[in-house]
This record gives sequence, C-alpha cells and structure tokens, in this order.
Amino acid sequence: MAADTRQHLLKEGMAMLLRHGYHDLGIAALLEATKTPKGSFYHHFQSKEDFGLQAIDAYMAEVHAGLDHCLGDESMPPLKRVRHFFELTEEKYRTEGYLGCLLGGLGQELSGVSEVFRRKVEECFSAIERRVAACLREAIHRGELAPGTDPDGMAQLLINCWEGAALRTRLRQNPAPLREMLDFYFRSAAP
Amino acid sequence: MAADTRQHLLKEGMAMLLRHGYHDLGIAALLEATKTPKGSFYHHFQSKEDFGLQAIDAYMAEVHAGLDHCLGDESMPPLKRVRHFFELTEEKYRTEGYLGCLLGGLGQELSGVSEVFRRKVEECFSAIERRVAACLREAIHRGELAPGTDPDGMAQLLINCWEGAALRTRLRQNPAPLREMLDFYFRSAAP
Repeated sequence: MAADTRQHLLKEGMAMLLRHGYHDLGIAALLEATKTPKGSFYHHFQSKEDFGLQAIDAYMAEVHAGLDHCLGDESMPPLKRVRHFFELTEEKYRTEGYLGCLLGGLGQELSGVSEVFRRKVEECFSAIERRVAACLREAIHRGELAPGTDPDGMAQLLINCWEGAALRTRLRQNPAPLREMLDFYFRSAAP
Repeated sequence: MAADTRQHLLKEGMAMLLRHGYHDLGIAALLEATKTPKGSFYHHFQSKEDFGLQAIDAYMAEVHAGLDHCLGDESMPPLKRVRHFFELTEEKYRTEGYLGCLLGGLGQELSGVSEVFRRKVEECFSAIERRVAACLREAIHRGELAPGTDPDGMAQLLINCWEGAALRTRLRQNPAPLREMLDFYFRSAAP
C-alpha cells in the first residue's frame, strides 16, 4: 500500500515534471492530482529535491528496461538494435504528447543552479552512453562500422544530437526532428 | 538614461535567465543585482513574461549580429562561414562559463506550460535556420555540398544537434561536445 502510494506519486510526478519542469511543479498540485495527503508525501520523500532525484531514478529504470529490450535482441544486427531503442523512445514521446525528454528538461533547467541535479543528469546520460557504446563496439566487430570508429565518442554524439532533436520535438510538437536526426546519424556513421 | 536602465536590466537579466532559468529567477534578485527600483522595472516591462520575451529579443539581436558578421564574410567559402558562426558562439559560451544557449534553456523549461514562449523560441530557431539555410544554398551552388542536398533540412539538423551539444556542454562544463558535434556534422555533410 505504502509502496503503491510511492509509485503513484513518482508516476504522476514524472509526467508533471516533464510538462512543468521542476520549479513550476507545485507539490500541492501533485498531492491534489494523486489524492495523497501531505504527510504521506513526506513519508516517502525527504524534500522536493529528493522527490525530483527519485523521479529521475524511476525514469531511468524505464530507460534501462528499454535498453535491455532493444540492445539485448540478438536477432537484430547491433546498429539496428541501437536505432530500435531510439524509435521506441520516439513512440514513448508520442504517447506523452511530444514533450521531449525528462533528462534534457531537468538538465537544462537545473544544472545552472544545482550541482546535485547537474551531476545526476550527467551520470544518467553517461550510463545510457556506456550501454549504447557497448552495442556500437559490437557493430565495429561485426563490420557494420569502420574499424577506426570511436564507439564512446559516437555514442555520446548520438545521445547529444538526440537530446537536441527532442527539444525541437517539444517546441514543434511533432516527431520529424527525431527521425531526421536518426536518418542523418546512421547514414553518416555507416555510409 | 531610461534606455540605459532598460539595457542594463536586459543584459543582467539575460545572464541571470541563462543560469537560473525563468521560474527560478526572482525579479527582486534582478532589481538588487542592477540596483534598480521596482517602479523602474515596471516602467520598462509590463510583467515578468514581457521581460522574458524582451530578453529573448535582446539575445536574438546578438545572434543576428553574429550571423551578419560570419555569414556576410564573403572572403570565406560558405561552409566555413557557417562553421565560423558556431565557433564564435562557442567562444561566447566560454566567456559565460559554459552555461549553454538561452533559447534551448527557456525552450525546454517553458514550452510545456506557455504557448507564448513555445512559439517565441520556435520562431527564433526558425529565423536562425533561414539564415544558415541561405548560406548552405550558396554552398550547394558553389559545389561545396552535393547538388541534391536539402539546405532547409540540413540547417535545421545543424541547429538541433548544436542545441543538444550545448545542453551537454552545460552539464559537463566543457566545450568538447560542441566541437565533436561540429566535426561530425561537417565531415558528414561534405565528405
């Protein structure tokens, strides 16, 4: 029951953080949306900051599940697996109304004023990159990418360009920037 | 004198918006930093929203000046002019402590909750793109880019990837993501 309340707060909180960002999110509004008493919120979370950090962990659990699903699918060649992960992420953005990426949103908003959030978001991007880089390394072994390719650099480039495209998707409210970016990246990486 | 006060508020406000974002920026803190009385602020700006929009206009005036300087330099081939603009922008980020791009920051933070800011930031990116696209068109005419290249699409891609790299620069507090992105883009666009 207590675990349910915590999950419910995190799920609704992730959606509200994605739309509102951190400073515009009122805890009162979250409590109202989830019909949760204030005491219950502070039972699960020490502070708004603690809640934001746990919301990022919950978001990352979904990201890692998507990476497990896509990058672990050995029926596909490695580059297709990587692309599939981003296509799945685009599908997630669609169901949310093309609001982009929570990491990008909180990273932009908070990294100038909070070392805690700056490090947290950077660690999340680095974790995603390490997994993508491992799959790109496999693509190099299999000859899908040129032997001299730097898998770590190419993984970071992909994440960064994706985040820029995700911002534009949020601004234009359509998925075209994501697709155009993936087409360019994969065409350029493996001509 | 009144014009000076307005300029002073906008200049300091741009720097504070870049670090804090919109919701975390207190007008009281801005008045204190600029030693401006409250009445004077509301003489120049109808509201915080109006101030934010005028700060974006002031930022865009600088962007257009940079575009004039770089893209208008006919001593350079067109692709070099485009790259020069982004290198100049990186230099600007350096002097500000690698906090990234004000348009990306406000676009991420506000586009989920404000149609006014969402449209404003999208218009700014579109305006930059039109100018970059015109220069890419010249690069096509001069044979620097393949004849079938879509200058509008390639301009949008460049801006979007740049914004993602700028976010990462803000998170890592170093310029490497910007340079790696430009290297990849120009190597891929004009192999």
